[in-house]
Amino acid sequence: MHSKLLFFCLLIPSTLSSPPNIIIMLMDDMGWGDVGVNGNWAKETPNIDKMAAEGMLFMDFYTANPLCSPSRAALMTGRLPIRNGFYSTNAHARNAYTPQTLVNGIHEYEELLPKLLKQADYKSKIIGKWHLGHRRQFLPCNRGFDEFFGSGNCHFGPFDDEKTPNIPVYKNDKMVGRYYTNFTIFKGTGESNISQIFLAEGLSFIETQSVSKNPFFLYWTPDATHDPNYASPMFHGKSIRGRYGDAVMEMDYCVGKILEKLKELKIEQNTFVFFTSDNGAATYRRRDGGDNGPFLCGKETTYEGGMREPGIAWWPGSIPAGTITHQLGNIMDLFTTSLTLAGVKPPQDRIIDGIDLSPVLLDQRAPIIDRPIWYYRGNEMMAVRVGAYKAHYWMWTEFGNDPLKFTFCRGQYIQNVTVHDQINNTEQPILFNVNRDPGEKYIVSPKSREYKTAMAIIDPIVKAHKEALEPGVPSLNYCDVAVQNWAPPGCEELNYCLPVPESNPKLCVWDH
Amino acid sequence: MHSKLLFFCLLIPSTLSSPPNIIIMLMDDMGWGDVGVNGNWAKETPNIDKMAAEGMLFMDFYTANPLCSPSRAALMTGRLPIRNGFYSTNAHARNAYTPQTLVNGIHEYEELLPKLLKQADYKSKIIGKWHLGHRRQFLPCNRGFDEFFGSGNCHFGPFDDEKTPNIPVYKNDKMVGRYYTNFTIFKGTGESNISQIFLAEGLSFIETQSVSKNPFFLYWTPDATHDPNYASPMFHGKSIRGRYGDAVMEMDYCVGKILEKLKELKIEQNTFVFFTSDNGAATYRRRDGGDNGPFLCGKETTYEGGMREPGIAWWPGSIPAGTITHQLGNIMDLFTTSLTLAGVKPPQDRIIDGIDLSPVLLDQRAPIIDRPIWYYRGNEMMAVRVGAYKAHYWMWTEFGNDPLKFTFCRGQYIQNVTVHDQINNTEQPILFNVNRDPGEKYIVSPKSREYKTAMAIIDPIVKAHKEALEPGVPSLNYCDVAVQNWAPPGCEELNYCLPVPESNPKLCVWDH
Repeated sequence: MHSKLLFFCLLIPSTLSSPPNIIIMLMDDMGWGDVGVNGNWAKETPNIDKMAAEGMLFMDFYTANPLCSPSRAALMTGRLPIRNGFYSTNAHARNAYTPQTLVNGIHEYEELLPKLLKQADYKSKIIGKWHLGHRRQFLPCNRGFDEFFGSGNCHFGPFDDEKTPNIPVYKNDKMVGRYYTNFTIFKGTGESNISQIFLAEGLSFIETQSVSKNPFFLYWTPDATHDPNYASPMFHGKSIRGRYGDAVMEMDYCVGKILEKLKELKIEQNTFVFFTSDNGAATYRRRDGGDNGPFLCGKETTYEGGMREPGIAWWPGSIPAGTITHQLGNIMDLFTTSLTLAGVKPPQDRIIDGIDLSPVLLDQRAPIIDRPIWYYRGNEMMAVRVGAYKAHYWMWTEFGNDPLKFTFCRGQYIQNVTVHDQINNTEQPILFNVNRDPGEKYIVSPKSREYKTAMAIIDPIVKAHKEALEPGVPSLNYCDVAVQNWAPPGCEELNYCLPVPESNPKLCVWDH
Repeated sequence: MHSKLLFFCLLIPSTLSSPPNIIIMLMDDMGWGDVGVNGNWAKETPNIDKMAAEGMLFMDFYTANPLCSPSRAALMTGRLPIRNGFYSTNAHARNAYTPQTLVNGIHEYEELLPKLLKQADYKSKIIGKWHLGHRRQFLPCNRGFDEFFGSGNCHFGPFDDEKTPNIPVYKNDKMVGRYYTNFTIFKGTGESNISQIFLAEGLSFIETQSVSKNPFFLYWTPDATHDPNYASPMFHGKSIRGRYGDAVMEMDYCVGKILEKLKELKIEQNTFVFFTSDNGAATYRRRDGGDNGPFLCGKETTYEGGMREPGIAWWPGSIPAGTITHQLGNIMDLFTTSLTLAGVKPPQDRIIDGIDLSPVLLDQRAPIIDRPIWYYRGNEMMAVRVGAYKAHYWMWTEFGNDPLKFTFCRGQYIQNVTVHDQINNTEQPILFNVNRDPGEKYIVSPKSREYKTAMAIIDPIVKAHKEALEPGVPSLNYCDVAVQNWAPPGCEELNYCLPVPESNPKLCVWDH
């Protein structure tokens, strides 16, 4: 892997006149099947579909974890959450994220993409949901970003500001208000103009940077498609899918405006744009949960519905238009690919899981086949995909026969696969061919030659992975009411500080 | 409805210089989700996707029945199978089709599309699977087609020619050989060049007719995607989905070649082409069963997976390119629309269920909303869709908790919806909003205002339908080993006649 990376680090800078601008558009809880080009019947995304028609569509693109925070940590570090610390050991195989009570955030040891890009003079901005720690030392502008507009947490609320403070919205390193209090989301109707603010922030950053001789990195990650969904009046009630569809339509509009702006500024041939989502659609919601296409289950699970994501690469003149690839890709590859395009060497003192996709993107080379996709849930490797085959070492869903019960796999039932309890299959993993069986419905018989052939390839890959694995110190173990957003940076100037309660650290509880 | 039809019958001929050629491409057991533009992850259909990009994509297009024969009978007559007789009363709500032992076929009383098109001097040909009766009097050339290349039944086999004869292949009104015996399908590998023969027949017909001053009607309906799947060496083993995917790739290739031929002959601006399938993908198959996208269950069922179909209309210069519609469409509409485009009045002495879609196709008018979609299984109206709402009056699947058991809904389980026994819900139909819930997962509570509002619209529509319904004489009740394809027309000349056993008429047995 290292020799391959080095090869491209040397190659790319010599073939590119100057490093491209980089825009990563990361959606929140949007499913693989929510975009028109991946088959959504509501067809709410003409601009995203056009982006695919002008670029390269990944059919086998994955996130690194089925939950927001670890997925985002993997994008920023190019490393699996089990390495970068965005997991918990409080219970086995539990998903964990960044609530207001979370004490820690992304470790100082981790080298983040915006900071590394500084080596090539990139100016960087994040707009939307950060989710890698909401306390001062973890905020974006203290971890390598030049600019920030958005929040450290999800837009949950409204809260009472007594037991729980409302979530602060930041401009760079200071709060400028709070969700619900200053940035209105009408909970009853789901109306809010926040996505339009995020869009305006993005367009303004692009315009400002376009006249600079230095390249820029924009990480545009609005959260309107995350529960509770919201949309601007322009999109409110416009989708046949309801509130979630309205939010998708607004996201699509924003994607269109951003690409249009690049063309208007005539910098589209020098800007690499990637569109994806942080995890699968939240199919446990009774409504407005989004769509994972043909895939099993959704967010929080290590079935395909939880981790297969929309993936579109766009760079007119460099990435050939209208191409479709079955290259196995991962959100962590955006870290390595971005650095390669920028001519920056990824850190050499640690394992980087992301691979450089530029040979596939720019030269349409034959797929890079020596790359597994790892499916972790918290501290457990649940499954791995190698080529067409996916082996489940552990199974766990919340499925019960009662459809009114909480479940991550509503309406789906596969014997020995959608299981209510954690099932250890490490002695004889459950195998699927996810090319001919994307829904993980037909277990490949352990007695078959096919099983033996596939596992003879997969077993040594898993063994090598586990032997090399040094788990990072877990960041998601401790919670404390005192660390909530009572007095965020900047609250003094606005007189928005709230009294901080007594510290009461506890182990965080992670149900799933 | 009648007044509306009349209106367009008068309007269309005056606005068109001459009636267009008509090509209906009807796939066999291909699911909604099997084409790239509807989201298939394997992306095997670049030509079909291009057809959609150049034409109009229907997201809500339906067949009239979840099984081959009745669906095809509905296309040819513009009428529900319960009216045209393509159903059985041997048991309640049983799907029935055209096996070799079937005594009857499409009634003489029924007015078929090719015969009606003769009023406007159309020359017509069917290529592929007829399935409306395999005995002499029911064959295409005796029911209005000028030419025929294909067979009266499915390509099941190989048979022993003693207990069961192999299925004959016809050229016009005479057999030219039999499947497996003369038209090879290698059962072990699924290799066969039959689709290429069907393609060549189609291209040759188009070429010949293009120099005629009269318009043509081509009904191109190959069956490679029906079990047992087959593909030519060019496509064999090429798909990542296996044998079924190979067949889809070959169908896509053929679609591309046909459209290309129209362009080459410069008649594409005078040819209306529609692409669809006869019923949902056969999801009960362990492999190679195709894909119904986000929809519940598949072939044989009245859930969306059984009856929602891909639908693409193409007519450069007349149908605007790249349009997407949510108009509720039905295979029966192709009957009425074709007649309207040809300037021929549909039969006025009987109920025609198909509506004229030309206002939607040509003028992009607002959707025609006063049209229900009926979901029948044999002699029972199982469900109806009106607008966004679908009410199930009867429920029936073959779902059991044992996934190794035969089931039409593998891997899917919705309480009170996927039911092993026939359940009568006519007193309080089970309601879904299939716009926000295409997978029929979230039952609308009968206590809700939404339920009462929707049912207040649906109930009178169902009442009127049932009151006006005069079921046709059922064609699919009687079976007899003596009527099998022992001595098809033309067998004498080839010396291919087989001895006919003694007649032993029985009631046909329909399991599902």
